Amino acid sequence: MGGRMRDKEGGMNHFILRRTALLSGWLALAAPGTGLAQTESLLKLKPVPFTQVEIRDSFWQPRQETNRIASIPVNLAMLEKSGNIRNFELAAEGATNGFVGPFFMDSDLYKAIESASYSLATHPDPALATRLDGLIGKIAAAQQPDGYLDTYFTVKEPGRRWTNLRDCHELYCAGHLIEAAVAHYQATGKRDFLNIAIKLANHIDSVFGPEKRMGYPGHPEIELALVKLWKATDDRRYFNLAQFFIENRGRKYFAVEHHESLDHYDGTYWLDDVPIVEHQKIKGHAVRAAYLLSGATDVAGETGNPALLAMIDRVWRNTVERNLYITGGIGPSARNEGFTVDYDLPNLTAYQETCASVALAQWNQRLAALYGDARFADVFERALYNGSLAGVSLNGTHFFYVNPLSSEGKHHRSGWFQCACCPPNESRTLSSLGGYAYASSEAGLWVNLYIQGSVTATVQNQEMRVKVTTEYPWDGKVVLEPEMKQPTPWELHLRVPGWCAGATVSVNKKKIKNARMERGYFVIDRTWRTGDIVELNLPMPVQRILADPRVQADRGLVALQRGPLVYCLEQCDQNEPLGRLCLPQAAQLKASRREDLLGGVVVVQGLAGAAPEGKLYQAAGPERSVEFMAVPYYAWDNRQPGPMEVWLPVGDGMR
Amino acid sequence: MGGRMRDKEGGMNHFILRRTALLSGWLALAAPGTGLAQTESLLKLKPVPFTQVEIRDSFWQPRQETNRIASIPVNLAMLEKSGNIRNFELAAEGATNGFVGPFFMDSDLYKAIESASYSLATHPDPALATRLDGLIGKIAAAQQPDGYLDTYFTVKEPGRRWTNLRDCHELYCAGHLIEAAVAHYQATGKRDFLNIAIKLANHIDSVFGPEKRMGYPGHPEIELALVKLWKATDDRRYFNLAQFFIENRGRKYFAVEHHESLDHYDGTYWLDDVPIVEHQKIKGHAVRAAYLLSGATDVAGETGNPALLAMIDRVWRNTVERNLYITGGIGPSARNEGFTVDYDLPNLTAYQETCASVALAQWNQRLAALYGDARFADVFERALYNGSLAGVSLNGTHFFYVNPLSSEGKHHRSGWFQCACCPPNESRTLSSLGGYAYASSEAGLWVNLYIQGSVTATVQNQEMRVKVTTEYPWDGKVVLEPEMKQPTPWELHLRVPGWCAGATVSVNKKKIKNARMERGYFVIDRTWRTGDIVELNLPMPVQRILADPRVQADRGLVALQRGPLVYCLEQCDQNEPLGRLCLPQAAQLKASRREDLLGGVVVVQGLAGAAPEGKLYQAAGPERSVEFMAVPYYAWDNRQPGPMEVWLPVGDGMR
Repeated sequence: MGGRMRDKEGGMNHFILRRTALLSGWLALAAPGTGLAQTESLLKLKPVPFTQVEIRDSFWQPRQETNRIASIPVNLAMLEKSGNIRNFELAAEGATNGFVGPFFMDSDLYKAIESASYSLATHPDPALATRLDGLIGKIAAAQQPDGYLDTYFTVKEPGRRWTNLRDCHELYCAGHLIEAAVAHYQATGKRDFLNIAIKLANHIDSVFGPEKRMGYPGHPEIELALVKLWKATDDRRYFNLAQFFIENRGRKYFAVEHHESLDHYDGTYWLDDVPIVEHQKIKGHAVRAAYLLSGATDVAGETGNPALLAMIDRVWRNTVERNLYITGGIGPSARNEGFTVDYDLPNLTAYQETCASVALAQWNQRLAALYGDARFADVFERALYNGSLAGVSLNGTHFFYVNPLSSEGKHHRSGWFQCACCPPNESRTLSSLGGYAYASSEAGLWVNLYIQGSVTATVQNQEMRVKVTTEYPWDGKVVLEPEMKQPTPWELHLRVPGWCAGATVSVNKKKIKNARMERGYFVIDRTWRTGDIVELNLPMPVQRILADPRVQADRGLVALQRGPLVYCLEQCDQNEPLGRLCLPQAAQLKASRREDLLGGVVVVQGLAGAAPEGKLYQAAGPERSVEFMAVPYYAWDNRQPGPMEVWLPVGDGMR
Repeated sequence: MGGRMRDKEGGMNHFILRRTALLSGWLALAAPGTGLAQTESLLKLKPVPFTQVEIRDSFWQPRQETNRIASIPVNLAMLEKSGNIRNFELAAEGATNGFVGPFFMDSDLYKAIESASYSLATHPDPALATRLDGLIGKIAAAQQPDGYLDTYFTVKEPGRRWTNLRDCHELYCAGHLIEAAVAHYQATGKRDFLNIAIKLANHIDSVFGPEKRMGYPGHPEIELALVKLWKATDDRRYFNLAQFFIENRGRKYFAVEHHESLDHYDGTYWLDDVPIVEHQKIKGHAVRAAYLLSGATDVAGETGNPALLAMIDRVWRNTVERNLYITGGIGPSARNEGFTVDYDLPNLTAYQETCASVALAQWNQRLAALYGDARFADVFERALYNGSLAGVSLNGTHFFYVNPLSSEGKHHRSGWFQCACCPPNESRTLSSLGGYAYASSEAGLWVNLYIQGSVTATVQNQEMRVKVTTEYPWDGKVVLEPEMKQPTPWELHLRVPGWCAGATVSVNKKKIKNARMERGYFVIDRTWRTGDIVELNLPMPVQRILADPRVQADRGLVALQRGPLVYCLEQCDQNEPLGRLCLPQAAQLKASRREDLLGGVVVVQGLAGAAPEGKLYQAAGPERSVEFMAVPYYAWDNRQPGPMEVWLPVGDGMR
């Protein structure tokens, strides 16, 4: 941490605070070739657990409350109705038929329990706690004497355990069980679910590993879960098993498993085409890729494996520079629920699975902790406020699996899915959302998301609390008030979002000029005392955004964003057919608060161009100007059905 | 023809000559609901045969010469090589195996002979004439005693004649034979080929018809051919047979033929889904649709059948208002070589088969003669100068079957195709191109295309000649000099192209003000005498063209056109990657003649915007200005391979 400028007067520095790299862009990326892994040491921050983060704002708090009172009960009820819970009863009864649904049914219940556990951790709810205990009892009853637990195989294919790792999601389900169990343990202090997870993990550890047998999951997930279990139990075996699954991936085990000739085997879909350290770009199934990279980041962060870190760096760059929707989602194609070629980001047919946005956020949270670089928080902020948040309706009862950026009016949220991975995934993200906001080290606190409320963390061996007052994401003013027992020197790192130009900060009403900027954060390094007031100002003009010209789908189109929120136009807010509207440079764009709308949003209104219809081809010229209104993308499809567009034509001008 | 204003001084009218409807557009269409068929009587002009049109310009004459010395020999050589001619020998020998190629092989040879015949008609070539005689001898030898002629069935499926009209193209091949035979007869005066056609037509007439059997071709073509045979022979039976095929179409005969339940039969691909008069829009296979509509126009023009005329009117509007590429082609989809839904006009995957552009031109030529309305010539001009002309390389030896409007650099012309319909189709279009230029009636002459050279026609019972001097399509000045034995009153109709605003005309150096405008033509009605000079001026600025906003593929994009020519950008002419370029309103667009390039063209040069690459999303702002060059679309892919685009992003401005 050499070279940083201490405040010599024990007060504050005076800087012009400006994240200059961002003047021309949103996704601020280091210059090509400056691989993080090779050039910077690992910071290894600790994300501040969501249990130490209090959310008291007008944006997330209502969503969390809706999640608690609507989505979690809906999830559990639909799992009951769909047979997910009955499958556990069948397994406990020793039944060999009657299994209902696809082979990954168990995982949906685990994610729902994980979400409910997170909710319990911040919002006591005895009825819910009792409900979970009952479910955990059913899970316990379904566990086999040797620790094995997967109702699909126990009921439907007994004797065929671990024979089809590629397709049958046993390890994936186990991973979600482990995550849920760790969550339940941490939320309630009860060990019953954790013990199930330990017994299962021990069983898996008895099967797979060096000098045992080869294998890794067709659908990655267990790797990151085992790292969580290691941290919860301090049993290093679980980390070692995660490392085994990660580092062996790409040995083309699935070809062996399915007796396929290596000459014709294409393992791309499962990220099993090349040894893991050799990946050059993001590929295959999007959720699998992002879970795998999450686990790989966990493992590499612990081992420091330079080849693994370099791969993660390469693939991250490829993801955010060439394969990321503006709404923070990944995976354009329905065919493989995943990636195709660089810059292929169609809007109408965008797959952008809700789970993939969640997984991308998880991966980037790990990178943010590893490197302490704001670019990673830029990505998870984008995902959390846009692509993944759209996954659930404002009333919490309907869900998107697929998130297009353009709709002709026929794409709507569903009450449930046969493949129900997304609803509980977004639910657990909401109920643990505070965990994305902060990270800490001995040296200080990193603020990644600006959410009204507070955070408690231990810095320089002292517990301190920072109270946050802000209307973010609707307004860019953020007031932070540290509280601690005695004046203490530590560094406050305030993320200057990639979308922001002209950020300023003051401490105790004095503007800091030439503030130190480190990895995308303002660093205020001083002896803090209770009563200090930091005010961060992040200007939030409405921005017209263009995509790299290599994105064919966005050629000639422009999108609107304000702060971290990407906007869209829904037909119900326009007087003209949506397809006619364009947003030329001269378009007037005004942001205004509308408390009555969509739970309270800032809308973008103004004058757009309206292209004439009727002549198939005609001489270009300024379009007639018409009023329009845009709403945040996450809030679309909550009113009357109709067409929606994120990207509009630039148009030729306005008259 | 009431209401026209005669020149009271026996001289000229003085009008401001302006096709006002065109100020705002290129495709000038009548207001919706003003169906031509219902509201206007049929003019029934006669297209002036190409044999009476002399082409002596720098645009078409070299293309016709290349067609004669390169394309026609290449076509015949490739047909020889591919076995098309051998199939006739096999049929003549009574062979029952050895047939090579798809079942429509015969038609490719017929089209090549048709093209060669047209060429002979304007350019004597004894060697070619002898070659044709030889080929016609082989065709005669393959004809069966009863007149039947189709080498596929004779050699490969004897005994299965007329059993699969839907798929096996017997009637289609017969149609092309008839067209070729009429062409050869009219070019050479020799009746040998015509007699084969008559014998075949008589055979077909003995099979199909009222009180004989039902049926019509899976691939329409024979209908328009039978009308030609009727006109060449004055035997009304051939017209009646054409009418039979046209008016019965849509009886779902193909379901009967293939024993399919009518409940599940979808005859859309073959235009057999509804009775022909009930079609509401263009659909199915593009070439089939346009040939069918050509035949239907021939039949309806003769019978005056109002339901058929109304259908043609509806479907024409739907075609040109919603389903026409800017390059004058139709049929966006490779899947059915045809239509999908309105406004579906993708660029990279545009099918736009060369044959479909040719067929569209043929159909519109018939409509132009029927109605004397310039809107139809607008369509065939667009097709002839762009989409269909791109079908052959400048050196005449390579051919496009598929004509995309965007290429990543991998789409190139081929030396031949297994399905070789396109090369001879474009060849016959070029060798008879003069036939599109003029039409006449007793009252006067209609000039549809401006081509340097001359036309001879009979008007008011007098033969007259009009000499034309112009650099069209490179320049919009056209000088017309009528010549006739004695001063005669007749009307000169000069088409004001749909793309043109501000056209002016003068007679004997005096500008005509408030000239009469009728159906898109300036009408100059006076007593003409040799020595009169008409000068038409069609301003040809470079135009930036936008598509109707309902064309998803062109949202935010702009194309360039000048006069009748649509331009494109090829990578080899740019200093920047083509994908970066955009054409904002402020783009500078200059036209300049380049004799050294592509056989002599007018290029469009100037300053375009160049969007920065590297950041996936960034704030919009004026693009860096860079030099660019565009060339006519028809001339693309004649130099080094590389990306090509017709449509470029509008961009946000230039700095």
